[in-house]
Amino acid sequence: MKATWMYGAGDVRVIDVPDPRIELPTDAVVRVVAACVCGSDLHPYRKMHQSERGAGKGHEFVGIVDEVGAEVTTVRPGDFVIAPFMISCGECDFCREGLQTSCRFSQGWGEHGAAGAQAEAVRVPLADGTLVAVPAGFDEALVPSLLTLSDVYGTGHHAAVTARVRSGQTVAVIGDGAVGLLAALSAVRLGAERVILLGRHEDRTDLGVAFGVTDVVPERGDEAVARVRELTDGDGVHAVLEAVGYPDAYETALGVVRAGGVISRVGVPQYTDGDIGRRLWWPNATLTGGVAPVRAYVEELLPGVLDGSVEPGRVFDRELPLEDAAEGYRLMNEREALKVLLRP
Amino acid sequence: MKATWMYGAGDVRVIDVPDPRIELPTDAVVRVVAACVCGSDLHPYRKMHQSERGAGKGHEFVGIVDEVGAEVTTVRPGDFVIAPFMISCGECDFCREGLQTSCRFSQGWGEHGAAGAQAEAVRVPLADGTLVAVPAGFDEALVPSLLTLSDVYGTGHHAAVTARVRSGQTVAVIGDGAVGLLAALSAVRLGAERVILLGRHEDRTDLGVAFGVTDVVPERGDEAVARVRELTDGDGVHAVLEAVGYPDAYETALGVVRAGGVISRVGVPQYTDGDIGRRLWWPNATLTGGVAPVRAYVEELLPGVLDGSVEPGRVFDRELPLEDAAEGYRLMNEREALKVLLRP
Repeated sequence: MKATWMYGAGDVRVIDVPDPRIELPTDAVVRVVAACVCGSDLHPYRKMHQSERGAGKGHEFVGIVDEVGAEVTTVRPGDFVIAPFMISCGECDFCREGLQTSCRFSQGWGEHGAAGAQAEAVRVPLADGTLVAVPAGFDEALVPSLLTLSDVYGTGHHAAVTARVRSGQTVAVIGDGAVGLLAALSAVRLGAERVILLGRHEDRTDLGVAFGVTDVVPERGDEAVARVRELTDGDGVHAVLEAVGYPDAYETALGVVRAGGVISRVGVPQYTDGDIGRRLWWPNATLTGGVAPVRAYVEELLPGVLDGSVEPGRVFDRELPLEDAAEGYRLMNEREALKVLLRP
Repeated sequence: MKATWMYGAGDVRVIDVPDPRIELPTDAVVRVVAACVCGSDLHPYRKMHQSERGAGKGHEFVGIVDEVGAEVTTVRPGDFVIAPFMISCGECDFCREGLQTSCRFSQGWGEHGAAGAQAEAVRVPLADGTLVAVPAGFDEALVPSLLTLSDVYGTGHHAAVTARVRSGQTVAVIGDGAVGLLAALSAVRLGAERVILLGRHEDRTDLGVAFGVTDVVPERGDEAVARVRELTDGDGVHAVLEAVGYPDAYETALGVVRAGGVISRVGVPQYTDGDIGRRLWWPNATLTGGVAPVRAYVEELLPGVLDGSVEPGRVFDRELPLEDAAEGYRLMNEREALKVLLRP
């Protein structure tokens, strides 16, 4: 079958690999209906050292179950399934607490030389814990939105939930990528009265407005902080959803958070140290977030996707055949695409 | 009257100052029954630049109301009152949210050249918002415990509350000063099953055990982290209550927090930058805490003090007449005393 492999910075190829098969009784094999390129894939795309072995790529997909191992009970062949971006057992204490990203048996996709989700099919370890069958079955029109439940929508929701967004609040979202936009949608969904989106790509912030964003701040750095303060009578916002991961985004978050407010970071931090001195401490601001346990949120978010009351799939602005995965990476890396959907 | 003044590092004097009087209709004048020296007073005691004017000291006291301004309605002359370590209006949005430390009219004691609480009497601005009358009236035996409601008990409680300590959890407390010990007591009170106290002063950790601490870890740094990990099967603790404020305490907190856990800092951070990269982010650990709005907690904590079910006043191991305030500072600075109570 075809699968996407990365061999170094800027070097993505679609190659032939052996078809996946059941290796353990807890496995499933899923034919991929749609996969995508993630903002986090762009970090290795920019800096991976050249490697002969390379790495299978892709950690977000929806598909049709082809075969299941003897111990798999929650999905069966023919089921249309959503696969979160991490594999989890569903039974350990962390899974039961809703922190599947810290599952005692957690794995990523494409590890140990296996294909990732940007492929024609995937072996799914711990299928019972990992996969969620869509109760309504396959629906072509819903594919993009269901695909967001594998990562970006769940991640945006995680930002809003961990920031304790609730009715009547003012929220700032830093970053107009797919996660930022869906963090904004999630804040709206959780009742935020005012959602301020910090982003400078007009086509993206327009989509934010369609999702319910009330104010767009295209400024950056100190000017962005001043603008958000101005919009909030000097007080700052109850919650900051930081969906970028660079130090300046954290600085901005610190600059706009209200006393007693929360900064939630869901972009992978591309830095180690940050200011956690009196600027954070004196106003009792909280710093939270982390890698999103999206598996925990599928059941809660699925009904809104199925009934069409939210359309997170609108973040996909380009669709390419799997063979063109390299072009998908290029488009996202050069910000010519917001988010690319790949079709095997 | 007599009042304590600091003129520079190590230079504390009890001097004669004019008696306080009602200046605004929202003021009260309170005769101090007991005040104390705070761990945070030791920072200027160690590094304050010499000043001719100096500064009035003390921000924790209980006393008897002597006189009230025309607009004061919640306390009256003769009331036995607790004064939190910050002045707050009680009516603004932050006060109503329970974040009195961010009150729009907040002030500290001893500002603008006025006497602080280490004095015979104090002018209390915004008396209605700030003071809490003890319903049962004056009780000599309860003075030390009631005095802790003005800072250290409320601050320890704030650590436990913001760290979301709840029934059945494992909690680590970093620091065996008065705040650390009362954070431990608070964690026990909120239902923690296991409370691990990191401290090396045996007389203090013994008091921690009396408060309900289950494990004492005298090691420091990496050894302390290893010990706490060992005590928790490698997982770390649900909540870390950091009551020190130095960078190594934060490092230890980061080392012992469980995935999905919370670090709450209530010691004033004596640093700016800290590690908030993937070590914090990947396990979804939360960093919270801040200057404690102790006014918010008086009503909740008072009944346990009045009925004797908790005895936070046990942190006072020395009592001195006000005239000996300088000796009180020396005793605390040299760790000869855990916490010093001053009697005018």
